[in-house]
Amino acid sequence: MVEQPTPHLIRVRVMPEYTVTVGAGVLASVPQSVGERHLALVSDQTVADLYEAQVAGALRGAGAEVASFHVPPGEDSKSHERWLGLLRGFVRAGLDRDAAVVALGGGVVGDLAGFAAASYLRGLAWYLLPTSLLAMVDASVGGKTAIDLPEGKNLVGAFWQPRAVISDVRTLRSLPSRAFRQGGVELFKTGMLADPALLDRFDAGFGPDAPEEELAEMIARSVAVKARVVSADEREAGVRAHLNLGHSLAHALEAVTAHTLPHGEAVAYGLHYAAIIGRRRGLADVSDRTAALLAWARPAPLPRVTFDDLAPYLARDKKNRGGRQRFVLLEALARPVIVDDVDRREQERAWELLEEEVGR
Amino acid sequence: MVEQPTPHLIRVRVMPEYTVTVGAGVLASVPQSVGERHLALVSDQTVADLYEAQVAGALRGAGAEVASFHVPPGEDSKSHERWLGLLRGFVRAGLDRDAAVVALGGGVVGDLAGFAAASYLRGLAWYLLPTSLLAMVDASVGGKTAIDLPEGKNLVGAFWQPRAVISDVRTLRSLPSRAFRQGGVELFKTGMLADPALLDRFDAGFGPDAPEEELAEMIARSVAVKARVVSADEREAGVRAHLNLGHSLAHALEAVTAHTLPHGEAVAYGLHYAAIIGRRRGLADVSDRTAALLAWARPAPLPRVTFDDLAPYLARDKKNRGGRQRFVLLEALARPVIVDDVDRREQERAWELLEEEVGR
Repeated sequence: MVEQPTPHLIRVRVMPEYTVTVGAGVLASVPQSVGERHLALVSDQTVADLYEAQVAGALRGAGAEVASFHVPPGEDSKSHERWLGLLRGFVRAGLDRDAAVVALGGGVVGDLAGFAAASYLRGLAWYLLPTSLLAMVDASVGGKTAIDLPEGKNLVGAFWQPRAVISDVRTLRSLPSRAFRQGGVELFKTGMLADPALLDRFDAGFGPDAPEEELAEMIARSVAVKARVVSADEREAGVRAHLNLGHSLAHALEAVTAHTLPHGEAVAYGLHYAAIIGRRRGLADVSDRTAALLAWARPAPLPRVTFDDLAPYLARDKKNRGGRQRFVLLEALARPVIVDDVDRREQERAWELLEEEVGR
Repeated sequence: MVEQPTPHLIRVRVMPEYTVTVGAGVLASVPQSVGERHLALVSDQTVADLYEAQVAGALRGAGAEVASFHVPPGEDSKSHERWLGLLRGFVRAGLDRDAAVVALGGGVVGDLAGFAAASYLRGLAWYLLPTSLLAMVDASVGGKTAIDLPEGKNLVGAFWQPRAVISDVRTLRSLPSRAFRQGGVELFKTGMLADPALLDRFDAGFGPDAPEEELAEMIARSVAVKARVVSADEREAGVRAHLNLGHSLAHALEAVTAHTLPHGEAVAYGLHYAAIIGRRRGLADVSDRTAALLAWARPAPLPRVTFDDLAPYLARDKKNRGGRQRFVLLEALARPVIVDDVDRREQERAWELLEEEVGR
């Protein structure tokens, strides 16, 4: 028996309240959190090969009936076709309103299975078992579920809170180093917004081989920041938008590259872009920090696109309200601010500087 | 200028609270309820020809930008294809999170447009302008939105409350008599559950030509009953299931006839079926009431199916919990009760009696 260190528990004060558990070996405790007797276990093929037998076995051992559903790995699975396929599968498996969905995997599986749970029979209970660093820090708080449209990412979905999130840091051992860095960028972003001490951990050695205890502690701190923000603002009307620091450009870069640029790498560029806008406005100059993040994150080269290519996607950002474009900037580390007066010229100039500074 | 009688206002105490307005000529007041400046007006082609110009004109006159969307009339439009078509249309129309959806039409338009509103950008504000008696009494309270799957009706959707419902009884003048009777059956059901005096209005003369004042009063009373039940139980865990009186068999009849039997006519049969089960159990004998309803509703003949054809659909009813079939019965007029011990033999015998009593 492997020793089980005490896991971190973070309560997320939304309606209804739930707990995020972060620790090493906590997948074994899943049956203690899942009360429903009839379950749809949704995963992607890669994750299923590694962890499905363990999770399904534990749940069946506790008396549950488990129907398994697999989707191909990758963002393409966040389609309305896959969503519809899950829903029809739930009908065939005989799931009624007392059933629940268990999402085992990264962000794609969580978003897709979460939206299937939100919309099947007008809403089933669901549980999230994230197996990527990105999903552990980003998807475990907020209740965001979504699928994509051909016109853009995450345009369809629901706010639908899971009943529990269980993040087993041992699953990160199987995570490729580049995938790990996607989550690291979001963790870094959380540090910039509210816990700057996290930023100092991003030395060359921080990766999937970091000690389990350190991983669990950092993830738990990042989740705690997000839980604080989201508890104050469940439906993203106000301060929750702070969590979109760096995401305006990131979403545009992802869209213009047809999602060949991974999310975290796009956010790393987006954080530096926001830092450049802030620096030019005389707000805090955090661009040395974001430049260091880019060195750690080693993103794919900045896409060879013009600002004109990006502008339509920036204009379509979900943060925009009443037709005005909104950006999250930093007045100082841990002091975010939302502005809606960054005009096109200013955005374009920041893009040119970003291109110069990353030496493309 | 036509005189505007004082409309009935019913407050629905869900989160957030909203008001149902019922009256003659109240469509003219729509711009006073809709605060958003960018609107998607969703309708079916039949209703659009009659009322879209009036509603869109009033909204544009008040300064709103209105994009119109039409679907074909009929249940087939509650498909994932139409839903997806609306969502992609919303993107093309540039709707952001400050926009709103206005659903103008019967139950199909409300369910479809409501679910599109619920799921676009994880949830837009929406307004319901019902133009059928069924939608006025059934869809204006409860926040239920849905689309169908090939496997069954309303299997996908969301609880998503509108910001306001505005029911103009003048639109009922254009409603065919048979369509009117669909709504009459639901109104009768509400009377059985909580306001038996409504039942006495169902004489031969009650139809779309009834005085506007009488229509508005009856609809408002029925909405008030439903608002009371739903306010107490927003997510349908308990007493809200009472509203499904007659609906177990109704949904099975609709499914087995591929929805060629209209909803209200199926419910009329379902109410009599529930009355027969109750009578045989020694509960209240309300089967003379439901027989009178059948005479008023003049439904299409009972489908020539066997109980074996119906049983799988009864077993799939959304009310069922933890694998047990649940039925709503009446201990007395205005005293509903939920039972979960109606076995197959008892269900089958009630079906045989229903067949005999309706003289098929």
